[in-house]
Amino acid sequence: MKAAKNKKILLAHGGGGRLTEQLIRHNILPKLRNDVLAKLGDSAKLDFHSESLFFTTDSYVVKPLFFNGGDIGKLAVCGTINDLAVAGARPLALSLSLIIEEGFEFAKLDKILDSIGQTAKENNVDIVTGDTKTVEAGGVDEIFINTAGVGESIEGVELGLDKLEATDKVIINGSIGDHGLSVMSQREGLEFQTELLSDCAGLGGLIGQLLENTDGVKFMRDATRGGLAATLSEISSGSKLNIEIHEKNIPIKPSVQAAADMLGFDILTIANEGKFVAIVKPESADDFVKICKAHPLGKETSIIGKVTESSGEPTVRLITKIGGKRIIQMPYGRELPRIC
Amino acid sequence: MKAAKNKKILLAHGGGGRLTEQLIRHNILPKLRNDVLAKLGDSAKLDFHSESLFFTTDSYVVKPLFFNGGDIGKLAVCGTINDLAVAGARPLALSLSLIIEEGFEFAKLDKILDSIGQTAKENNVDIVTGDTKTVEAGGVDEIFINTAGVGESIEGVELGLDKLEATDKVIINGSIGDHGLSVMSQREGLEFQTELLSDCAGLGGLIGQLLENTDGVKFMRDATRGGLAATLSEISSGSKLNIEIHEKNIPIKPSVQAAADMLGFDILTIANEGKFVAIVKPESADDFVKICKAHPLGKETSIIGKVTESSGEPTVRLITKIGGKRIIQMPYGRELPRIC
Repeated sequence: MKAAKNKKILLAHGGGGRLTEQLIRHNILPKLRNDVLAKLGDSAKLDFHSESLFFTTDSYVVKPLFFNGGDIGKLAVCGTINDLAVAGARPLALSLSLIIEEGFEFAKLDKILDSIGQTAKENNVDIVTGDTKTVEAGGVDEIFINTAGVGESIEGVELGLDKLEATDKVIINGSIGDHGLSVMSQREGLEFQTELLSDCAGLGGLIGQLLENTDGVKFMRDATRGGLAATLSEISSGSKLNIEIHEKNIPIKPSVQAAADMLGFDILTIANEGKFVAIVKPESADDFVKICKAHPLGKETSIIGKVTESSGEPTVRLITKIGGKRIIQMPYGRELPRIC
Repeated sequence: MKAAKNKKILLAHGGGGRLTEQLIRHNILPKLRNDVLAKLGDSAKLDFHSESLFFTTDSYVVKPLFFNGGDIGKLAVCGTINDLAVAGARPLALSLSLIIEEGFEFAKLDKILDSIGQTAKENNVDIVTGDTKTVEAGGVDEIFINTAGVGESIEGVELGLDKLEATDKVIINGSIGDHGLSVMSQREGLEFQTELLSDCAGLGGLIGQLLENTDGVKFMRDATRGGLAATLSEISSGSKLNIEIHEKNIPIKPSVQAAADMLGFDILTIANEGKFVAIVKPESADDFVKICKAHPLGKETSIIGKVTESSGEPTVRLITKIGGKRIIQMPYGRELPRIC
């Protein structure tokens, strides 16, 4: 019950790491107890007239609102589509709720709405319901957006951490750290020779193709807040299995690595907005990678490691480029406020 | 295209009146064009495997967070339940997204979460998915909450403004203005002999009973932002029929009237959080009222008027207590910031 000691909310409580987990497990879950919520999946899976209905929500508070590779609107649409997709669902419809500061420029609002409309269209998902609130100047920083989403199951697909076994492959669909370091660099006013670009993208199309054409996918999660480190930690602790990944196989852009080094961040803990981690049975891994590489959002897909048996506390291990071993822990959570 | 003239967002754009309507119709809808959203119902109605799926969202920014009769947590659960219920749906599950200011006290958060849990339980709805974000001090005022909700249709029930006819009765389930004036009075530090109490309540139970036991309900809407005036204006303009209501039949608590007079508000434009307006065919009206009056949330139910033919611009008319006539217009929207 560590959370009880903190009398006040810290920024780190929203960082997607250990403090977020404590807040959820110690403060939120006990008050709202039910079996669906307790699973803490990317989406809730509900029984709806003998079909499965997937349901998810996210609020977006990213700063700055416009960043290289996207904006808060694109992020809000992609983020919720991705939470449905990685749960094994076909995204059907989104809600959109805006909280806008008095004095916010219509020009900016229009640009964000354009982006929302275009991203929804590209991802073949309609915004079907919404809400708009205004708050006095100073009550909110420019604009916050919430999207919720509903989806339907893809026939024959059932994902779950309980399906994981030793020898399963760990696959990521491209380079890590791009989103978080793009946003942070812009916020800090840093410039690099190569412009950093957020990977913000809707993964519904690619994941749909994967789930419809390979039968060996066991689990997926988008590596957002807390980055690859948090995602792998959750997979390991949830499945009670170890994960072993190879540093040399993790795609990282040199400019992103340079930014991480300059800002003092561990790139494994940095948020991504267009990357999933998939756990795939070994005999399906090659097909999976092939489909990914043929898709614009998966050209750099890489098998980064595998699931292994655990005899004690489930652990994520990184084999470094020089052959050393490093334990990857769930990040504490203070790294990056307002990155998504 | 009046909205285009305003270069910046005004508080009134969130007031639920004419400016909100302009913002939605001129700035938001054109960017997100689709048939379901264009209906602007309290909930979207989607086809889902030959069943109807209802989907809605609302963000809550009420200030103060704790008010007589409720708090932001209770409001967030009830508001979304009510948006589903008035659309003719049985609320099934909610999402919960918190945006919390750094430094917010855990004691307050726990109180709000208690309230959310208890209200969800009382209304027989689970919170099944969620999100938690933190924002630096000053980036958000204490805490904002978004809830989205999904629901299923109640057999045989189909509500719509296209079903309205002259002679249909206009019914409200109790006194108006209680929520908005309770919150405003508390914010302004006003005290009255009788304590003002928000009417914040989940209407799913009462509306479920009504829809399952009477077949004459044609349309319902909860009279929140913009109050009874906005709700009746929307019903009139959406159905292209006139509405005539009698001031003497509108339940108003004397203390609420006193507060409205003191603060200079037209009570018809004040937000309610536990009141619906129902349009019911005449021969079902007595049964409808009877069921309401037997329920704790409908004891003061009153038939306040009727639908009449319109030969020109659809109009809402109030017959005053002394027999005069007053046109009720869609409020402009500036009245009450952060009331829900």
